[in-house]
Amino acid sequence: MHAYRSHTCAALSAANAGEEVRLSGWVHRVRDHGGVLFIDLRDHYGITQILCDGDSPAFAALEKVRAEWVIRIDGKVKLRDASLVNARIPTGEIEVYVKDVEVLGAVEGDLPVQVFGEPDYPEETRLTYRFLDLRRDSLHQNMMLRSHVVRSLRNRMWDRGFTEFQTPIITASSPEGARDFLVPSRLHPGKFYALPQAPQQFKQLIMVAGFDRYFQIAPCFRDEDPRADRSPTDFYQLDIEMSFVKQEDVFAAVQPVIQGLFEEFGKGKKVDPNWPLIAYRDALLWYGSDKPDLRNPIKMADVSEHFKDSGFAIFAKLLENEGTEVRAIPAPTGGSRKFCDRMNAFAQANGLPGMGYIFWREIKNPNWDPQVYEQLLGWIESKEVDEGLLNAMLSGDVVSAKDTLQEICNLIRTGDGLDLQIAQSLADETYARKEITEAAGPIAKALGPERTEAIRTQLSLNEGDAVFFLGGKAEQFESVAGKARNEIGRELGLTETDTFRFAWIVDFPMYEKTDEGKIDFSHNPFSMPQGGLEALMGDPLKVYAYQYDLACNGYELVSGGIRNHRPDIMFKAFELAGYPKEEVEKRFGGMVKAFRYGAPPHGGCAAGIDRIVMLLADTANIREVIMFPMNQRAEDLMMGAPSEPTNEQLRELRLRVLPKDA
Amino acid sequence: MHAYRSHTCAALSAANAGEEVRLSGWVHRVRDHGGVLFIDLRDHYGITQILCDGDSPAFAALEKVRAEWVIRIDGKVKLRDASLVNARIPTGEIEVYVKDVEVLGAVEGDLPVQVFGEPDYPEETRLTYRFLDLRRDSLHQNMMLRSHVVRSLRNRMWDRGFTEFQTPIITASSPEGARDFLVPSRLHPGKFYALPQAPQQFKQLIMVAGFDRYFQIAPCFRDEDPRADRSPTDFYQLDIEMSFVKQEDVFAAVQPVIQGLFEEFGKGKKVDPNWPLIAYRDALLWYGSDKPDLRNPIKMADVSEHFKDSGFAIFAKLLENEGTEVRAIPAPTGGSRKFCDRMNAFAQANGLPGMGYIFWREIKNPNWDPQVYEQLLGWIESKEVDEGLLNAMLSGDVVSAKDTLQEICNLIRTGDGLDLQIAQSLADETYARKEITEAAGPIAKALGPERTEAIRTQLSLNEGDAVFFLGGKAEQFESVAGKARNEIGRELGLTETDTFRFAWIVDFPMYEKTDEGKIDFSHNPFSMPQGGLEALMGDPLKVYAYQYDLACNGYELVSGGIRNHRPDIMFKAFELAGYPKEEVEKRFGGMVKAFRYGAPPHGGCAAGIDRIVMLLADTANIREVIMFPMNQRAEDLMMGAPSEPTNEQLRELRLRVLPKDA
Repeated sequence: MHAYRSHTCAALSAANAGEEVRLSGWVHRVRDHGGVLFIDLRDHYGITQILCDGDSPAFAALEKVRAEWVIRIDGKVKLRDASLVNARIPTGEIEVYVKDVEVLGAVEGDLPVQVFGEPDYPEETRLTYRFLDLRRDSLHQNMMLRSHVVRSLRNRMWDRGFTEFQTPIITASSPEGARDFLVPSRLHPGKFYALPQAPQQFKQLIMVAGFDRYFQIAPCFRDEDPRADRSPTDFYQLDIEMSFVKQEDVFAAVQPVIQGLFEEFGKGKKVDPNWPLIAYRDALLWYGSDKPDLRNPIKMADVSEHFKDSGFAIFAKLLENEGTEVRAIPAPTGGSRKFCDRMNAFAQANGLPGMGYIFWREIKNPNWDPQVYEQLLGWIESKEVDEGLLNAMLSGDVVSAKDTLQEICNLIRTGDGLDLQIAQSLADETYARKEITEAAGPIAKALGPERTEAIRTQLSLNEGDAVFFLGGKAEQFESVAGKARNEIGRELGLTETDTFRFAWIVDFPMYEKTDEGKIDFSHNPFSMPQGGLEALMGDPLKVYAYQYDLACNGYELVSGGIRNHRPDIMFKAFELAGYPKEEVEKRFGGMVKAFRYGAPPHGGCAAGIDRIVMLLADTANIREVIMFPMNQRAEDLMMGAPSEPTNEQLRELRLRVLPKDA
Repeated sequence: MHAYRSHTCAALSAANAGEEVRLSGWVHRVRDHGGVLFIDLRDHYGITQILCDGDSPAFAALEKVRAEWVIRIDGKVKLRDASLVNARIPTGEIEVYVKDVEVLGAVEGDLPVQVFGEPDYPEETRLTYRFLDLRRDSLHQNMMLRSHVVRSLRNRMWDRGFTEFQTPIITASSPEGARDFLVPSRLHPGKFYALPQAPQQFKQLIMVAGFDRYFQIAPCFRDEDPRADRSPTDFYQLDIEMSFVKQEDVFAAVQPVIQGLFEEFGKGKKVDPNWPLIAYRDALLWYGSDKPDLRNPIKMADVSEHFKDSGFAIFAKLLENEGTEVRAIPAPTGGSRKFCDRMNAFAQANGLPGMGYIFWREIKNPNWDPQVYEQLLGWIESKEVDEGLLNAMLSGDVVSAKDTLQEICNLIRTGDGLDLQIAQSLADETYARKEITEAAGPIAKALGPERTEAIRTQLSLNEGDAVFFLGGKAEQFESVAGKARNEIGRELGLTETDTFRFAWIVDFPMYEKTDEGKIDFSHNPFSMPQGGLEALMGDPLKVYAYQYDLACNGYELVSGGIRNHRPDIMFKAFELAGYPKEEVEKRFGGMVKAFRYGAPPHGGCAAGIDRIVMLLADTANIREVIMFPMNQRAEDLMMGAPSEPTNEQLRELRLRVLPKDA
């Protein structure tokens, strides 16, 4: 028999009853039922219940084992009583009666992190004892999920004709704009390598080198300041590049890979196969974000025209300034003052003066009068008004809305078909219904019913709904608007929770004006400007780039572009952003040089793997999907990194660490 | 139609004749056949011949393109004349008549590296223009081979139940014994991370964390001094670890993976499925190497007993010293003075005083005498000697070897069966054969025929063969002996060239005596000593480790061990090598701590991927199997790494570079 096991802890079933077996694993839980020991023995594959009593020669030894000891047992498989079968685990029909036990790995002292039951601990404790934390089922599952996701991505890429190549990890600085991790060179003291922020230049060089469809599960290194949802040191991306492609070719290559992946690992959540293309500008307008969550049906809209010269002075005055607008966030089913006030407070908590709103509610119809209504229907039918009765109604105090009553009668008197229809509607609206819809809130009053109604119509809102307004320069309120949209969608239960919805965000502007009024790249300087060289001759702020993101449920999953492979267009593009040719040659020399020797049109993208796994594992903490993560201060608490170098190491690198106040 | 291509450059065949197509690719070669342009258009997939003449509107533009320009063409597929079909390429039956052309990427100036024909360039030029070098078919093939090898390894590992996990790249120093690359921390100035020399501690922690079968295609970083056949910065390994295993379980897991890989990518070379286990000590004795090339049938042997107290004074005297021995390198078919002298010179060129030798050759038998032989056969038959005739023969000058003649006759006279048989042999040996075998060389003379013959018998050598001798302390001549064995095998054509032969080298000694007489680890300090704690109580130099290498054709492909997972045994093992407990805790704290909380028995190995690809691609230069390699001075000539950091970068890291003479 094998030294450690004849079966794993997930392998035995009723079919093995009576067999002599050997198992190894961790003591998951010990229960002592008055002289009978029950132990859940756990390994990577599952759990098997073993038991032992005083009749067994192993009893004395087994009595001593504690949680998380590693043991090897020999024993006989027995069927459990029907009443004791555990249907939740594959081995639930059997248990193993222990005849021999060997301790393979004991625990010294107390366990700093308990595995069974997964009680809470501070994250620092969990990270210090990561090897214990990882034994817990939830983290174990996450790690397996991540592995399977990466494997699936690889297979899907190969299946679509891509080849994986490894690019250098010790290399030169890459132009991603974040901070590099440096690596001092011992052979060239005073010089440094850098860890790649992304394999951007290398993958483009691979295209120039004549390979057609590249991918890589690539580690990327950025010396980032701490943030909860990202690693402070490195992350993994599915890096993709293709030659002889347009933007739509990249989309066509990526969608089946990502969609298939989410279908495979989405645990039954719906994966919307419709991936709309949304212009960057529209995404900001409609969703207040360039990574919109389309599970939320709310689509914001520009409603400036309704406020221009309106009675709502704040917005009317604001709109007199150039570049301002008023945007509406429709909130279907949000039509209560309580909800509207809560959202207003939300906006204030997010740094805005507040969010004005209108909501439509049902109120009692003060004009409701079935008798008048009946009378009017008769007159419309006969196309004749009983003028005497009418005069009596107009002169008395019983009938309300006398202006409307007169208008209806005028329409009946003129007598043609359309007039009668209008008369009928007016009668319906005014006298027929016991309840009517009211537009509530101070803005509705100031705007007046007509403009209010026009807004309601534009946004397809109804009684019971609300709308919120934000005014000013879009960039000042857009992100809060996006957050409010999320909040509204969630609060009102409008946002789906069982679906993945994707959209390609396209047409990113190539340039933007900085606060100092300078023209600078707004996103990736290496993307091809739409319209090529010619487009760069006009207003830079009107140039779009062939650049795109894939948004999913409010996260940016993928980012990419069609690259600028033409040195002439590249130098011009950089010139517009204030970088002289020499600077470009110096910083991106390797790539620019390559473009001079026959470069193919090419483009690609990169998908964030940690983010994908977080979505699939349904966790917001990146440390739940990384085997050995850094803490938020970029420390590895388990291995003790970073640490002091030895003097010899520093001497070899010809470096000196300066004192703190130097 | 697609903007760039309707087909790749490998897609068109006779079936497409008459179709209008669009192709994009690099101009591989231009030929101008008097007004008709022939261009080989190349992409990642293949080559298609395109042509154009003055009747085409594209002619003027196409006339301008040069080698390695990237172009897009539209044209019509035409069948080639039967006489012009090129059977070597899939598109050889057709050509495309060009009607339109667009230059997608021109070449500025001269090409520093030509692609077509692959002319030679200095390696520095090739590395500086790696993107051109990679367009060459041979390098392109190597890169694709590497990718497919890595993919196949991954699939084979998954198929065998292993899961791939990524371990940290920015981490703490790992205990592999080579030099770390350091990464200064910005958030913790004065402290440094290290790049992992291997994921050794992490993979062991993964086992302690309860995952059962881990693998990773892992980048490993070592700040190594330059050497031709390795990268000065990093390499990739297939890293493997398993829980609840013995050494043979690791072998059983690895062999099908590696063997299958070599069968898949070995280009028809034979892959020997018999992987012997060879003790480290035997490997050194038999092959002079712990990574023997078993394609070479030569097996060395200890022949000390034949030289002890022999007439060959040099060795006889040498063997009086303790720890010395004489080893023989048999050289079948090497039996000529010319060859033996060449090998002697080889040994001298490798720092030894020389290699003594014996070789066996055919010489004329000076005693050959058919008449005497005939006479003797008659006497043996009749069991009677004609004494008169014998006396005449002994007194005359015609018959030679008279002592032997007398001995034969004495044997005939005594008369029993065995004596007669001996008499017959002596007669055969002395008088029957016209030619006899002579042991030549000064050693044979000094040793005398009996000892010489004993050596020949021990080594199963024959006429036409040779044997070389090396004497002294084994460690002083072993490596030259190994080289000589290789040289002999190659020179004599004994070493197979179309086979991969593997062997597991096992039973490495745990400790060795350093030159200063100290006990130190001879290989990996983390391997489990054979015999456990008890074995560590005796003579350390007699302890073997559960540690193993896989040798293939003279290279070490895999190295691994069963780990020491018991803190008590680990501290004892380190104590023997002079490391106090505190030192072990300090240097390997993460792992040692983990072993205190329930560690399973585990073991594994790592396979060198660069090396495997080199073997499969049949190249000795590691830069032929890496996409973007460093040169031997650890510089990336294309990207310009390493380079000077900015002052701001140094300030953020609180580092100062010291002047050269500081």
